[in-house]
Amino acid sequence: MKNILSMSQFSNQEVYDLIDRAIAFKEGEQSTVGTNKYAINLFFENSTRTKSSFQVAEMNLGMREIMFDAGTSSTTKGESLYDTVRTVESIGASVAVIRHSQDEFYNELLNRNINIPIINAGDGAGQHPSQSLLDLMTISEHFGQFEGLKVGIIGDLSHSRVAHSNAEILTRLGAEVSFGGLDSWYTPEFAEIGPHMSVDDLCREMDVVMLLRVQHERLSADENKNFSKEKYFKEYGLDMRRVDMMKEDAMIMHPAPVNRGVEIADDVVECDKSFIFRQMQNGVFMRMAMIEAVLSGEKTSNELINKKRQIILR
Amino acid sequence: MKNILSMSQFSNQEVYDLIDRAIAFKEGEQSTVGTNKYAINLFFENSTRTKSSFQVAEMNLGMREIMFDAGTSSTTKGESLYDTVRTVESIGASVAVIRHSQDEFYNELLNRNINIPIINAGDGAGQHPSQSLLDLMTISEHFGQFEGLKVGIIGDLSHSRVAHSNAEILTRLGAEVSFGGLDSWYTPEFAEIGPHMSVDDLCREMDVVMLLRVQHERLSADENKNFSKEKYFKEYGLDMRRVDMMKEDAMIMHPAPVNRGVEIADDVVECDKSFIFRQMQNGVFMRMAMIEAVLSGEKTSNELINKKRQIILR
Amino acid sequence: MKNILSMSQFSNQEVYDLIDRAIAFKEGEQSTVGTNKYAINLFFENSTRTKSSFQVAEMNLGMREIMFDAGTSSTTKGESLYDTVRTVESIGASVAVIRHSQDEFYNELLNRNINIPIINAGDGAGQHPSQSLLDLMTISEHFGQFEGLKVGIIGDLSHSRVAHSNAEILTRLGAEVSFGGLDSWYTPEFAEIGPHMSVDDLCREMDVVMLLRVQHERLSADENKNFSKEKYFKEYGLDMRRVDMMKEDAMIMHPAPVNRGVEIADDVVECDKSFIFRQMQNGVFMRMAMIEAVLSGEKTSNELINKKRQIILR
Repeated sequence: MKNILSMSQFSNQEVYDLIDRAIAFKEGEQSTVGTNKYAINLFFENSTRTKSSFQVAEMNLGMREIMFDAGTSSTTKGESLYDTVRTVESIGASVAVIRHSQDEFYNELLNRNINIPIINAGDGAGQHPSQSLLDLMTISEHFGQFEGLKVGIIGDLSHSRVAHSNAEILTRLGAEVSFGGLDSWYTPEFAEIGPHMSVDDLCREMDVVMLLRVQHERLSADENKNFSKEKYFKEYGLDMRRVDMMKEDAMIMHPAPVNRGVEIADDVVECDKSFIFRQMQNGVFMRMAMIEAVLSGEKTSNELINKKRQIILR
Repeated sequence: MKNILSMSQFSNQEVYDLIDRAIAFKEGEQSTVGTNKYAINLFFENSTRTKSSFQVAEMNLGMREIMFDAGTSSTTKGESLYDTVRTVESIGASVAVIRHSQDEFYNELLNRNINIPIINAGDGAGQHPSQSLLDLMTISEHFGQFEGLKVGIIGDLSHSRVAHSNAEILTRLGAEVSFGGLDSWYTPEFAEIGPHMSVDDLCREMDVVMLLRVQHERLSADENKNFSKEKYFKEYGLDMRRVDMMKEDAMIMHPAPVNRGVEIADDVVECDKSFIFRQMQNGVFMRMAMIEAVLSGEKTSNELINKKRQIILR
Repeated sequence: MKNILSMSQFSNQEVYDLIDRAIAFKEGEQSTVGTNKYAINLFFENSTRTKSSFQVAEMNLGMREIMFDAGTSSTTKGESLYDTVRTVESIGASVAVIRHSQDEFYNELLNRNINIPIINAGDGAGQHPSQSLLDLMTISEHFGQFEGLKVGIIGDLSHSRVAHSNAEILTRLGAEVSFGGLDSWYTPEFAEIGPHMSVDDLCREMDVVMLLRVQHERLSADENKNFSKEKYFKEYGLDMRRVDMMKEDAMIMHPAPVNRGVEIADDVVECDKSFIFRQMQNGVFMRMAMIEAVLSGEKTSNELINKKRQIILR
């Protein structure tokens, strides 16, 4: 694996392999793949928790971090992203984890003189592969498979980096995906994947209820003007009444940070069915698997995975 | 010891134990209590020197730091402090050192699902236990005991995080505390503890002269308008004339950063009686002792301390 | 070597020694001079790439970094630079790498109570020794000597930290230095060193073409108003037509970040004659040599260098 840029690059088998490897790390497996290597986390958009999670993953693999404040770097003075990445490679980085506000920012970096792997930590309104993969890992830990699972994604589909890629990969892995939330958020690309349902119905029927964060900063002025937290919470928010409708072993997921009292009730965040903090915990192990995969190169990565394969998912 | 939140939580014995342990670290004692563990320093208010001191203490104990820029984190977008701390715990932090502008911010974190220890690195106008403890350590190194010591605290008592807690703990440990500075800063809570005296008298009579920083950013508009550096320096500032009045072995202390020419003269900062940079140096060792205490848990911590007890203070 | 403050402090031999040592590091030489030591990088002006390069150099030497955000530190509240450096020394730093907007900021630090070495990472419009030394290293790697080399420096001479010090040290080492760019930038201090020539002539005659970055942020309002990127590029920019005029083994250098399409054409940045990313790579090794030199003290540093001397340059 040279780079990790988008969920669509992965075969189903590669997804299973990454999940297996992440679970192995969680169970105590060690790797020395990063020893004496440097990682750089270029976050041109703030994302404290994703950045911190990558940092811990890197340190767990024996790497050290080159500090690079993207907010004050030359890139803000007009330096191209390509020149910045070439620079950090010249300084000694072995992998660059990048978040950038531009969709598919990585296209500027491919097929040129960059020899270190790139991991996409979120591109514009595009993808967020490490979030998608940690979501899949968390579901896989609980249910052991994706085939036939009913997954409902509720919330601001159109402004989310994970809604569309999660819906696609889950469908590809055999799950059935449905959607909930404002009608205006249910755009044709989602209608092609699955039906739109009421939140009550989703709670009754789904195995996984995946909430999305209402991102006020991404709503239009018009949407924000008409937006009422109370109304949203009443109509689409997950409260205990709805949790009680859910199946015995159903999961509640949320990419965090949560808006308590908007898309989720205070007492639901850490209820028995909630896997929200488990998702964060798993994120570190999945990011270890991702970094290892790109550092090892495709061949070595497969060897590592085969050595430790766990047959949970097949 | 689960958390370190306030000086009032400590028995006198616990204070002596922490001082002993900090002095042992200063003398070269090693600890592996932090090996392969992560610390997080959540500073929602700037405090470069306190943060750097905690960082060095953590690294000295073998810990690595999870970088977390509180200024750009989700907390600023309305995430609760509780959710932020749960997040960093999920990501892998073993201890959270927190500075926050809200008084007793830690109340929001107690008796909930947080399993890592919290160290208060300054809460609003409340406490700053690591500063108080390093002050005590520095006095203890010099005088060997607190019983009967005369300590004068001069400066902006009402806006200081350490004035009140230092006065209380010093009184509890047997010292006699007096105060100096503007009358308006000598509020009833200080009057209960000790008398208000002129700076000249304090210099003549005290064993320890503890200066506080004039914090212009915390003065009211009215106080700032009427404030004259020259006048303050003349009336309350420590210059060489006053240093010469002091007892042979008296100490000058200041939590820093100093305002040269306001509360202290340029040539007093590093005069023979000044322990200001010694305080900073001691701060690293005291913070090591504090972090070790919460990482070890109460029992282990006492064992460690007993193993190395030095009978300086009793 | 106690501090590294300015190129003028070095004898020619010391320059050769630092280059030899940096090349040894590049070839895999290890040093444990920094083991268990802390470095601090006090950057009061942004310079992401210089700071990152020093960080990697420090980590390569076994050092750990004390994080210190100069932008939010007490220095911005009026604390003197001296007090800040004394503070970080008290906290445990073994070396302080400082960038500051004030010319010769280090004069405030000398002959006082600071016992750790200072490395100047750029002072105002003054010097930038690590950049000058990495430039010399890169030339030395390619040509093996400086004697008789023709070096042309093109660009904003008057606002550059390296133009003047590079011209001086290169002349001292036996090179002949010429200049190009706007007439108004060719001030008397440069006229004393070498002639002003057209960019075409420089390309034809020079062994090294050293471009400088057009620093819009340092131009006067008047200069900026009359500045046209297109005109500058046409008259002074390095494009492929001019590269084709250059000697077979001539070098193109630039301190970066580059302004593509202003002082250099897009396709020249990584052409065969360009050493721009090599300069960045070399920077890490030169900074290792510099830090080692100040940490080892003069005697030990010479011993280390003599042990590994490579007779490239004499």
